Amino acid sequence: MFRTVFFISDGTAITGETLGHSLLAQFSGVEFTQVRIPFVGDATAALEAVAQINRAGKRDRARPIVINTIVDKKLSAIIRSSESVVLDLFGEFLDTLENALGIKPQPAVGQTHGLKDFSVYEDRMKATNYALNHDDGIKLSFDRADLVLVGVSRSGKTPTCLYMALHYGVKAANYPLTEDDLDEMRLPPFLRRHKRKIIGLMIEPDRLAQIRETRKPGSRYASIKQCRKEVELAESLLRLEGIPVFQTTRSSIEEISSRVLAELGLQREMF
Amino acid sequence: MFRTVFFISDGTAITGETLGHSLLAQFSGVEFTQVRIPFVGDATAALEAVAQINRAGKRDRARPIVINTIVDKKLSAIIRSSESVVLDLFGEFLDTLENALGIKPQPAVGQTHGLKDFSVYEDRMKATNYALNHDDGIKLSFDRADLVLVGVSRSGKTPTCLYMALHYGVKAANYPLTEDDLDEMRLPPFLRRHKRKIIGLMIEPDRLAQIRETRKPGSRYASIKQCRKEVELAESLLRLEGIPVFQTTRSSIEEISSRVLAELGLQREMF
Repeated sequence: MFRTVFFISDGTAITGETLGHSLLAQFSGVEFTQVRIPFVGDATAALEAVAQINRAGKRDRARPIVINTIVDKKLSAIIRSSESVVLDLFGEFLDTLENALGIKPQPAVGQTHGLKDFSVYEDRMKATNYALNHDDGIKLSFDRADLVLVGVSRSGKTPTCLYMALHYGVKAANYPLTEDDLDEMRLPPFLRRHKRKIIGLMIEPDRLAQIRETRKPGSRYASIKQCRKEVELAESLLRLEGIPVFQTTRSSIEEISSRVLAELGLQREMF
Repeated sequence: MFRTVFFISDGTAITGETLGHSLLAQFSGVEFTQVRIPFVGDATAALEAVAQINRAGKRDRARPIVINTIVDKKLSAIIRSSESVVLDLFGEFLDTLENALGIKPQPAVGQTHGLKDFSVYEDRMKATNYALNHDDGIKLSFDRADLVLVGVSRSGKTPTCLYMALHYGVKAANYPLTEDDLDEMRLPPFLRRHKRKIIGLMIEPDRLAQIRETRKPGSRYASIKQCRKEVELAESLLRLEGIPVFQTTRSSIEEISSRVLAELGLQREMF
């Protein structure tokens, strides 16, 4: 079973695509072709989108699903004139909110992922630069860090730090546990004094070996023996130091980030 | 006017927060306190959330707004028993989709931002590593790049590349135009042969000077004169080479990414 799904927006279409993925994930057995149509800002663009939707419907012999986040009512009406099933994310919920708040919404076109405020944006950029400069033990000073992720090499620290910096403006540093740290069975002093903002990332040895193998095939570094040893020692070390640990093997970057922020009580607004 | 908004989910709550931000942006004049409650997986957690909602309502003397993306109907019913206005993102739309598709949804709890597939996940990680290794001219070989962003230093290339890698699994490299490139008024040969996958990022000189000033205060690099000169030359160069250019001054990373992918026809599914 094939269906085409359109994400249509006056902005980036990210909001619609995010919710769309959640909804579509509930229907297994359907093969969805996903098409993003962002920046639909006028009637011409809306009519072009309608033509594209109708062509897909003819090809699939089934009505496409349209996830619409256009704010403008006239443009949304054009989209609804297509031969499709339209889920209008704003229509319904805006009315409910208007009633709850007792004030009228001010149409703010495509603002969700727009640039709202230079200072907020700068926090985000600064956090990203911070993460890049404090990645993989490049800089070992963590005074200004909001948090420090520690773990063995390739346990998922770097992408998680970058994600948290980009989306929460959090200054996230990371430090790879070295063989020296593991042998001495304690955190180095420059880390130890930041204990309350450290979180450990842990990964299953099999998966770790698999990831390392794609980077350095056939190396001692990628051998299952070495991976088992490092993971075991890292687990002991973090337990001894009383550092909370999250497993990354079956988690996405988003899940790990969300759990880390919750654990440390960092209630940052998401970008 | 104060209102507390809760984003409640059995997963990361990212979907609800994303749509929530879009909706709340339409109501100016209200000061929203935002609280994320992720990973609500059982009745105990749901009841705790209800208690937290009710406390906020008492404090604010106004019913909190709850954006709920819990899939489980029993847990959602517990959330709805709170003294609040609940927007249930799944309830409504799942019914519409069920009718449109003619099949029953299979409850897939908190899967949107979960780890679905190791190979997809690996693409995302590989793309992130690629972006890190091909950032800021570190590696000058772009054969495997899906796209290359060029522009003057601090025009927004790095965060945009990281964002595209993390969210679209796109191998995004970037190259900072050097003074030599600008003097010679042409792209270096190793870039030239990848012309069709190059996009230019441009920024207003005033804004550029402001950003550079925070990095190297009082430097020639940050002077408005230098910034004006570089931007002017970069614009001429990219025009001469026929490279499409996007302005980053008033755009968010999400907007730039979305426009770049659309321009190059890269229809990647978003993570």
